[in-house]
Amino acid sequence: MSDLELIAVPSSITDPASFGFTPCEGGVCASAGISAAGVHAGFRDEPERKDMALVAADKPCVCAATFTKNCFCAAPVQVSRERAASGHAQAVILNSGNANASTGEPGVEVAKASTAIVAHELGCAEDDVLVGSTGVIGKQLPLDPYKTGVPAAVAALDHSPAAAHDAARAVMTTDTVPKEVSLEGPVPCGKDGDNVTVHVGGFVKGSGMIQPNMATMLCVLSTDAPLTARAAQAALSAAVSQTFNKVTVDSDTSTNDTCILLATGAAGGEDIEENTKAFDLVATAIRCACENLARKIAADGEGATKLVTVDVVGAPNDADADTVARSIANSPLVKTAIFGHDANWGRIAAAAGKCGIVFDQYGVDIDFLGVPVLRAGLPLPMDEDDMLRRFEGNEVTIAIDLGVGNAHARIWTCDLSYDYVTINGDYRT
Amino acid sequence: MSDLELIAVPSSITDPASFGFTPCEGGVCASAGISAAGVHAGFRDEPERKDMALVAADKPCVCAATFTKNCFCAAPVQVSRERAASGHAQAVILNSGNANASTGEPGVEVAKASTAIVAHELGCAEDDVLVGSTGVIGKQLPLDPYKTGVPAAVAALDHSPAAAHDAARAVMTTDTVPKEVSLEGPVPCGKDGDNVTVHVGGFVKGSGMIQPNMATMLCVLSTDAPLTARAAQAALSAAVSQTFNKVTVDSDTSTNDTCILLATGAAGGEDIEENTKAFDLVATAIRCACENLARKIAADGEGATKLVTVDVVGAPNDADADTVARSIANSPLVKTAIFGHDANWGRIAAAAGKCGIVFDQYGVDIDFLGVPVLRAGLPLPMDEDDMLRRFEGNEVTIAIDLGVGNAHARIWTCDLSYDYVTINGDYRT
Repeated sequence: MSDLELIAVPSSITDPASFGFTPCEGGVCASAGISAAGVHAGFRDEPERKDMALVAADKPCVCAATFTKNCFCAAPVQVSRERAASGHAQAVILNSGNANASTGEPGVEVAKASTAIVAHELGCAEDDVLVGSTGVIGKQLPLDPYKTGVPAAVAALDHSPAAAHDAARAVMTTDTVPKEVSLEGPVPCGKDGDNVTVHVGGFVKGSGMIQPNMATMLCVLSTDAPLTARAAQAALSAAVSQTFNKVTVDSDTSTNDTCILLATGAAGGEDIEENTKAFDLVATAIRCACENLARKIAADGEGATKLVTVDVVGAPNDADADTVARSIANSPLVKTAIFGHDANWGRIAAAAGKCGIVFDQYGVDIDFLGVPVLRAGLPLPMDEDDMLRRFEGNEVTIAIDLGVGNAHARIWTCDLSYDYVTINGDYRT
Repeated sequence: MSDLELIAVPSSITDPASFGFTPCEGGVCASAGISAAGVHAGFRDEPERKDMALVAADKPCVCAATFTKNCFCAAPVQVSRERAASGHAQAVILNSGNANASTGEPGVEVAKASTAIVAHELGCAEDDVLVGSTGVIGKQLPLDPYKTGVPAAVAALDHSPAAAHDAARAVMTTDTVPKEVSLEGPVPCGKDGDNVTVHVGGFVKGSGMIQPNMATMLCVLSTDAPLTARAAQAALSAAVSQTFNKVTVDSDTSTNDTCILLATGAAGGEDIEENTKAFDLVATAIRCACENLARKIAADGEGATKLVTVDVVGAPNDADADTVARSIANSPLVKTAIFGHDANWGRIAAAAGKCGIVFDQYGVDIDFLGVPVLRAGLPLPMDEDDMLRRFEGNEVTIAIDLGVGNAHARIWTCDLSYDYVTINGDYRT
């Protein structure tokens, strides 16, 4: 079997060195002009647990955003979507413990009132404050925690990595780790195309109810690149579609998915418009940051023990490639087999075949954990001991070539474990 | 809250009395002219466990069938689909323990060879023998068990309820109970429209990898009504689309789904064609039998503790109603909440909203376990103790009114428990 070549899958942009950037410190505060805080405001009962995050730019700046397409979109999504359309903002207030979803007009009023408190404390326009919530659906969100929490958060605002970390912690629900990213690198947006050092940072929360559609649960990104509003939205939308929207933990698109990018321009340099070398670089850095956070969501999926990457190649078109990859990634049978360290690739074949995309099973190849297991629809002998050893790593790779066309899709997911059932059987009560 | 009316959902045909039929004994053998057997042939290692079923008509008879639409369809599906198209058959040979799927041309050869052995032993035409398999995917199916197993099964063939029961047992995999049905009632297909007593019987296996698309895992139905081949196919297709194809345990459509109806005509009477009163009655009885078995599949879903019925009303059209109902029924978050006895209806709202069907959240009503919990998008106060009591039953009902149109869909599913993970993490190894 060792002579068989693996299925060729397109390379990733996981490594920032591939476009001249390097990882740096600071999370969302890595970008000049951004401060953050995370405090306990009282949305949760545990007195020690941070449950409110505030991210603020030193002054109003460019803003781009993407939101859930769930018809039951939450109140904060309704408020933020309308405001972000202006292309500018100054702050984002986020809470965990209550999603403010399925709460009707009263929920919208609370979301707006919370931003009014932030605007008052920061001395900025109410329309420049965006809002995000995560937690239980169908319970009215109380306003009281904001009344004491926001002044405390504003007092705690800081440009330090520790402050960014506090904000990342404050939005966690069933997440087991805070999820942050920060990158820096040269971008030719100075006078005469000189290089300017630009930063991209951010944090995300997301562990269950994760099959983002337009954005993930709650994500705040920052950059000090001088992007125009139009360029910022273009870069964010492109990045989100290839990263967060390619993650699925349980196929459940949240009511609250929100991804906000604040672009302060504080790095200096000339305005960056689309279709320039500087734009391409910053957009790539934003995509790299999003991919980093997206993989962290899949790896920290509720109950997950493995990060699973599904590559579909040889599909007739991008949409069909995505459908097949998602069908595999959302299959409970595939996910439980991975949890059980069972190289049961027959379930991958079944999941690919069930989703309505037409192909000839006798033209299909499958690799599992870097081993060819199916060629032209015929099973190959498999070394079970070798497979068990390959399961010892933290990642599982699945590649399938449909043998129809040239389109490709990559989806990130995780396995399905007892802990997923525990977490979601017990979550609310 | 007690003044609020529940969402009106169309009534079911679960009760055969609604069309003048009554339950009877005999399973697949309830129909005159049908015998069955279940034996241990050796597909499984456990010596006591039956793993091969044979169902035979006393002579060649009318046959109708539906099969999986999974692109990775199994070898027995390929063989049976071609043969069933003739509209006649005499026997069905079924095995558990190996699905004979993803096995290429060698798998097709074994499937054909197995039917040749059956034809030889029964003295019938090879083309009149259909075949079905269930079990692991991607392993070649051995022919040897047929060489001794088929003669033993033919020797054991009997028209008794016990023989039908043996056959139902022999196809079980992760099923915890055999699933059988039998009904009888008067049908006006005698001379001058006199009533003739007609039977419908059958068994099904199915517990995991269950989201049938055109038929369920393995189902053999019988009737002694004198249906023509065309009428038999029409009745079966209509029944399957509204019953087995509305069940989902885990959204995973099998590679092997097969549903075969043998219509012996042994009840006597004139040929039954479509668009007659007799046809409507027999078709209703077949649908009732299929619904009975479909509900048994959902109730016996892998690891299931509850049978869950999801009704969507007020949808713009049937396809959209089905999409929303399936989105709810396949949501791991909804399913784990039910397992945890958590009336977390917010997840139902989120699952309805995520699937791409457009509606206004402020026009939506939801009932959970027979209690109104959402009206016009606003949550209602909920008595948690009352909800916990309602969870003590074996069934959970979910109804959602989208408030858009008049279309309806009903999907049967089950909850998602630790045992699903145990069963599917350990299944193959």
